[in-house]
Amino acid sequence: MTKRVLTGITPSGTPHLGNYAGAIRPAIRASVQPDTDAFFFLADYHALIKCEDPQRVARSRLEIAATWLAAGLDPDKVTFYRQSDIPEIPEFSWMLTCITSKGLMNRAHAYKAAVDQNQAKGVDPDDGVNMGLYSYPILMAADILMFNAHLVPVGRDQIQHIEMARDIAQRFNHMYGQGKDFFVLPYELIDETVATLPGLDGRKMSKSYDNTIPLFEGGEKLLQSTINRIVTDSRQPGEPKDTEGSHLFELYEVFSTPEQAEAFKAELHDGLGWGEAKKKLFERINAEIAPMREKYNDLMANPDRIEEILLAGAAKARQISMPLMEQLRAAVGLRSPHLVPVAPVENKTEKVKTARFVSFRDEAGFQFRLFDAADNEVFLSLPFADPKQAGLLMKQLQAGQYRIDQIEDRYHVFVDEIQVADLDQAQQDRLLAALSQQ
Amino acid sequence: MTKRVLTGITPSGTPHLGNYAGAIRPAIRASVQPDTDAFFFLADYHALIKCEDPQRVARSRLEIAATWLAAGLDPDKVTFYRQSDIPEIPEFSWMLTCITSKGLMNRAHAYKAAVDQNQAKGVDPDDGVNMGLYSYPILMAADILMFNAHLVPVGRDQIQHIEMARDIAQRFNHMYGQGKDFFVLPYELIDETVATLPGLDGRKMSKSYDNTIPLFEGGEKLLQSTINRIVTDSRQPGEPKDTEGSHLFELYEVFSTPEQAEAFKAELHDGLGWGEAKKKLFERINAEIAPMREKYNDLMANPDRIEEILLAGAAKARQISMPLMEQLRAAVGLRSPHLVPVAPVENKTEKVKTARFVSFRDEAGFQFRLFDAADNEVFLSLPFADPKQAGLLMKQLQAGQYRIDQIEDRYHVFVDEIQVADLDQAQQDRLLAALSQQ
Repeated sequence: MTKRVLTGITPSGTPHLGNYAGAIRPAIRASVQPDTDAFFFLADYHALIKCEDPQRVARSRLEIAATWLAAGLDPDKVTFYRQSDIPEIPEFSWMLTCITSKGLMNRAHAYKAAVDQNQAKGVDPDDGVNMGLYSYPILMAADILMFNAHLVPVGRDQIQHIEMARDIAQRFNHMYGQGKDFFVLPYELIDETVATLPGLDGRKMSKSYDNTIPLFEGGEKLLQSTINRIVTDSRQPGEPKDTEGSHLFELYEVFSTPEQAEAFKAELHDGLGWGEAKKKLFERINAEIAPMREKYNDLMANPDRIEEILLAGAAKARQISMPLMEQLRAAVGLRSPHLVPVAPVENKTEKVKTARFVSFRDEAGFQFRLFDAADNEVFLSLPFADPKQAGLLMKQLQAGQYRIDQIEDRYHVFVDEIQVADLDQAQQDRLLAALSQQ
Repeated sequence: MTKRVLTGITPSGTPHLGNYAGAIRPAIRASVQPDTDAFFFLADYHALIKCEDPQRVARSRLEIAATWLAAGLDPDKVTFYRQSDIPEIPEFSWMLTCITSKGLMNRAHAYKAAVDQNQAKGVDPDDGVNMGLYSYPILMAADILMFNAHLVPVGRDQIQHIEMARDIAQRFNHMYGQGKDFFVLPYELIDETVATLPGLDGRKMSKSYDNTIPLFEGGEKLLQSTINRIVTDSRQPGEPKDTEGSHLFELYEVFSTPEQAEAFKAELHDGLGWGEAKKKLFERINAEIAPMREKYNDLMANPDRIEEILLAGAAKARQISMPLMEQLRAAVGLRSPHLVPVAPVENKTEKVKTARFVSFRDEAGFQFRLFDAADNEVFLSLPFADPKQAGLLMKQLQAGQYRIDQIEDRYHVFVDEIQVADLDQAQQDRLLAALSQQ
């Protein structure tokens, strides 16, 4: 069975080599597997949460789209779109907001981490937390469920969000499905084989460590000069180098065949200088990157072309989101007039299935009313001093022994006291009908 | 100056006479005041928060639209639309979510009341609270700011939400306005003269008290029979009635001229029976309601006509929301490629304005690097045993006395040690250029 696999990419920076090897390359390879219907989207609504720099969001949307396309994502084979081109997404997100318990969001790791930090600092637990950070798991659920994705490739830190999306999907199915499931339950897809690329200093390559190697940015020249900055041990040329624990060698491995890596290892063991080694690493990486870089630069020079591809992708995606949204709107009650019940729908608090007695006490004493199933008052008793008397009369009425001494027919006049015998046939029928509904 | 006045109506039930006298009638009268540009909308996204009954939401959307139109709202003079027909609203709401602090939502009265109740019950503070209830002040801010409303007619319990909308508007203006204010600051409009209609039992007319008088529902017959259920004192016909504190009289007053009310008061003082009084009250109310009821029934029999009016209203509203949204999207970074900066925008953490020295320590000793303004490494020093030596060298370089004994030119080979004299002209120029950027 074909699986829908959905990958979101937050455009909040410029991709580096670690993003390429750890996310872009494996995702693109996976997208062409048989029985895979791959969806890729630029999560630009998510980018607004942390990024207050509009220029960077704008630039990053282009760069990231161009990067994925240059790296081989084929928009004819996959569905590649921008979140903000799908108006159904924020609308759906609000629907899900209305059925998501706040307790679920309280348990989100990202939020809890922020609270922990604040508590450690001795400030308000919600200090500096914005509602975007707090509620983005709902938006993420909307992203996933809108396209009924079966699998979502994520890192371990994101597993909880997929659990939450399942939770929310189940709740929606249960509340509005009426036996039909609108959503399949999505699961995380963790690729254990994916490389975490080391950065210049050997720690995980990450912007926050300032140890990244650029992917396309700055061209061949910056790639080379950055590779030259990789920290190595201080062995001189001629001294044998240990490849075990060498992040330079690790980088080489990620971009080479096992044979190429073996040969490189042998050269290092034989005393290849680090300078030469960096040159070889640069050449190895550049051999893979150079053709993509050319495509990337070409796309970045033609942003209209990128826009065109993304808009075509959005049109393709909306062929799914629009009809589903129509169903969802109808399900929650935002439906066309042809789907609206003709009879008034009463408030639940007012909903009355059968006739009922309502007893009450006021200054005058204990009284009761009889309402029919349509909530029309059929009778109001006169006041009794003793509630037991009122209770007895109710029982007699229920038992069909409607020996009422004094009643008021509220259909006509309020105060006039009339005998049962004074009820006309229609009134007696109404009374009997109400009692038989009891 | 023309003021934009925006009124939201949540379609979660069937309007009763209290809604008519307390909200609908005064709002429609106010909408035709000079210098008023009135916006009315069915807040059906809000209705999803509390109402899990899709039938009721669906039916209520029709009933409430028909009610307002029947009560005299002129869709040619005002802008009358349904929230869910404006796709800009949920998108805008997400933008505002990203700039709203969670602390602000924590202070919302409705949420705090729910927490207080839970704490009194000894359960989790967020028990039964959904994210819709928690975050709807943001959606409400989006409703208001999307149309740059100056005034929002609300009850006292809603003043805080208008304050929050102002707060959020100011934050957006500040963060993204760049000197330009996207939003005027909205203020609440409290009409002290508006009647709070008493219900059948004298308490405020409210569904939760089950004491309402229907507006159009059930027709003349239900109006009459419900009026007959108004609780009065037990004075008999002929006994003088006190109008002070009589909610029956209060109801009459709301639907009559002062002269009519005076005449009715005199009749009651003269001993008019409550039954007769109810008949007169019914006639008085019905005189105002009957022509509207006819129009209402006519509309409800033609839901396509209602739909047509609402869609025309949405088209009118979107003439405002669409161009504003385009500006807002551009402001936050979701902009067309023609508005995107050509140069890469770097991460703030990576942003380097000038050349800089970075000193560090590893096994070999104290070293430093010199990066130029484009973050290219220009030099790496050899290790020093004493950090002061490294510091002195940095100072000499900064002072232009670049007497470097041993340096490596990282542009070419990593390990080779070369003399300043060995630098070629281009390398010396780069070094001088980097230093002059300091």
